[in-house]
Amino acid sequence: MPCLVMKFGGTSVADLDRMERVAQRIGGAVADGHEVIAIVSARAGKTDELADLVVRTSPFYDAREYDAVTSAGENVTSGLVALMLQKKGIPARSWLGWQVPVETTDAHSAARISGIGTSNIRSRFNSGMKAAVVAGFQGVSPENRVTTLGRGGSDTTAVAFAIAFEAVRCDIYTDVDGIYTADPRIVGGARRLERISYEEMLELASLGAKVLQTRSVELAMQHRMPIRVLSSFGNEAGPTSGTIVCDEGEIMERNVVNGIACSRDEAKLTIVSVADRPGIAAAVFGSLAEAGVNVDMIVQNISEEGRTDITFSCPTDQADFAEKALAGVKESGDVNYRALVTDRDVAKVSVVGIGMRSYAGVAGRMFAALAAEGVNIKVIATSEIKISVLVDRKYMELAVRSLHDAFDLETGT
Amino acid sequence: MPCLVMKFGGTSVADLDRMERVAQRIGGAVADGHEVIAIVSARAGKTDELADLVVRTSPFYDAREYDAVTSAGENVTSGLVALMLQKKGIPARSWLGWQVPVETTDAHSAARISGIGTSNIRSRFNSGMKAAVVAGFQGVSPENRVTTLGRGGSDTTAVAFAIAFEAVRCDIYTDVDGIYTADPRIVGGARRLERISYEEMLELASLGAKVLQTRSVELAMQHRMPIRVLSSFGNEAGPTSGTIVCDEGEIMERNVVNGIACSRDEAKLTIVSVADRPGIAAAVFGSLAEAGVNVDMIVQNISEEGRTDITFSCPTDQADFAEKALAGVKESGDVNYRALVTDRDVAKVSVVGIGMRSYAGVAGRMFAALAAEGVNIKVIATSEIKISVLVDRKYMELAVRSLHDAFDLETGT
Repeated sequence: MPCLVMKFGGTSVADLDRMERVAQRIGGAVADGHEVIAIVSARAGKTDELADLVVRTSPFYDAREYDAVTSAGENVTSGLVALMLQKKGIPARSWLGWQVPVETTDAHSAARISGIGTSNIRSRFNSGMKAAVVAGFQGVSPENRVTTLGRGGSDTTAVAFAIAFEAVRCDIYTDVDGIYTADPRIVGGARRLERISYEEMLELASLGAKVLQTRSVELAMQHRMPIRVLSSFGNEAGPTSGTIVCDEGEIMERNVVNGIACSRDEAKLTIVSVADRPGIAAAVFGSLAEAGVNVDMIVQNISEEGRTDITFSCPTDQADFAEKALAGVKESGDVNYRALVTDRDVAKVSVVGIGMRSYAGVAGRMFAALAAEGVNIKVIATSEIKISVLVDRKYMELAVRSLHDAFDLETGT
Repeated sequence: MPCLVMKFGGTSVADLDRMERVAQRIGGAVADGHEVIAIVSARAGKTDELADLVVRTSPFYDAREYDAVTSAGENVTSGLVALMLQKKGIPARSWLGWQVPVETTDAHSAARISGIGTSNIRSRFNSGMKAAVVAGFQGVSPENRVTTLGRGGSDTTAVAFAIAFEAVRCDIYTDVDGIYTADPRIVGGARRLERISYEEMLELASLGAKVLQTRSVELAMQHRMPIRVLSSFGNEAGPTSGTIVCDEGEIMERNVVNGIACSRDEAKLTIVSVADRPGIAAAVFGSLAEAGVNVDMIVQNISEEGRTDITFSCPTDQADFAEKALAGVKESGDVNYRALVTDRDVAKVSVVGIGMRSYAGVAGRMFAALAAEGVNIKVIATSEIKISVLVDRKYMELAVRSLHDAFDLETGT
């Protein structure tokens, strides 16, 4: 019997009424002839509530106990959804991480799945169970302690189950009905994509389209497990609803550009006139890493008279830490520079598309579109399937809309 | 190093401030040189909240899923209390039922402990852990499902741990500061007992003094494990606070009567003129058991002309079920009787004391005291260490006070 994995996030199971809709969806998949593994999150807000209790108890908490406490929300949901299925006459059972077991590393609060035991659930399927309702987000360490996988970890739980049970697909039910060519709140004509490649999804995820946890996409890509992202609030959940994230080989018609992503809260820091010799960049970015600054884009201008400028971007709320770290390396004498210029009011806008690999001229078209609107480009960074620019924050929405038009995303190319 | 088991109920861990006091008490016991096993309940009200979710989901729920859901409250408390201990520099760790493991039968929602594995916790004690904070109320079935032990089950968890770890004592912290000669809300001069025997405690527990779960006392009696009942809200917790429940051999001075118990909501049912032949009582009480009626006292008058009257008592809210069940057996022809007389306004008052065994005249003194106040006795039942009477409910408090005086309980005999 084909196995289907279905994952429901916190807003999808926020209360008993919504859980009832989840149970209906699971029941539908069972009626379609699937053995279903449903991965459920805690009710919306519950994990935050528990995490808050931990932080109030002990700001420098032991992550093992943090996990013991914060994993409890999923226990409740999995039991309740299993009961709802039973009430509909569907043989169902709840499963906690340790019961499956979901084996993880002992990196508490950010554990990684190392293996999923399939024999317990399989033997239940063989004796008539139709739906296994698994508590997401949690696993068990080699020491037999409860672990959690970090925020968004239930996505990764779901993909890992889909791989372990050789599911036909991993359906992720969330509060949006798919992946769009741009944020629909910014671009009225944004279009839902039927399919998108893993690589593009990874770029979009890291660019601020927070629909799927990055690790879940990486894992799916590695095992070529198709993911479908769809809304748990829509009425229809037919074969064409949502967006399928899959191997690029399965996408017939590739667009040059598939999406415009943006990230509002960026800061740009320029280290002016620093010595251009080996070891300087290492000292600069080493100190930033130590200070916990997530450096994103890095550009270095050409050298003049042995000195150069280094510009990088990071989240706005980390700019203070970055400044402090750089003042520190200057004071210690490791790195000498003339000035540090910080611009806290920038945003990042990116065009993403696997088609770029075989299609020249994307950068030119992008820069022309921005120039036509009078948007000044402050920094440029590129990867194989993405071009990102920093612009003044006030132009972000304008830039996204103009690029959406420039690449004909509303109709598709 | 001596092991001490300490159990804290729901009101003792109702919020973070109260948990902090619990952590202080555990810390005190560690400072006194104990290895501590603390059994904690869910925060007050949390288990009810979860049980309510289950009932709203599915009135005829699967007890396995009920247990999966309702056990979650204890997970949270055990993690939080462990964190508070760590913050005080006390090496501590939380333990869920399956991690210990607390092995139980598979009678979900009312499971019985079949064994407690000691090696995991012992090896942690050997490597420096000073306090194990165990989630009460829960265990794991032979099928590896989470089980719960029924309301008040954490008391039984605590006693079972004390026995398994050969603890010096099992301290039960609750919202009263010990066992009293009578309910202090009824008798102003009620006196806290320093010691009470297991047998007396069992009679008191079943008579409505709901301080300890009956099973926990039975288990302690069987293994001669001393229990101390004390308040988690008092400031002092010295060696003489609370009440020790122990073997009667350890109680030097035995009083004839140690306590007056009462139970307000009783009903008395009399089956008038029923055939006095073998099989009739079995048919009557069999049908009541099937209807879920908890029959307490039973008396049968002498037979006249082959017919007799049977009187029994049960909780008031079960009187309707009892009437219906008895109408059923009459209709089916199994039992014929002339009339059924129900009195819903009675209460039970009992005197309890191991001294009764070797001291005659207790019944006489009791009946005389009640007669002096004009309290009519409707039914009498006795055991080796207890005499119970049913009286009109409106006389209950008066009866308790007059018996407390009659047996000099305020000063002790």
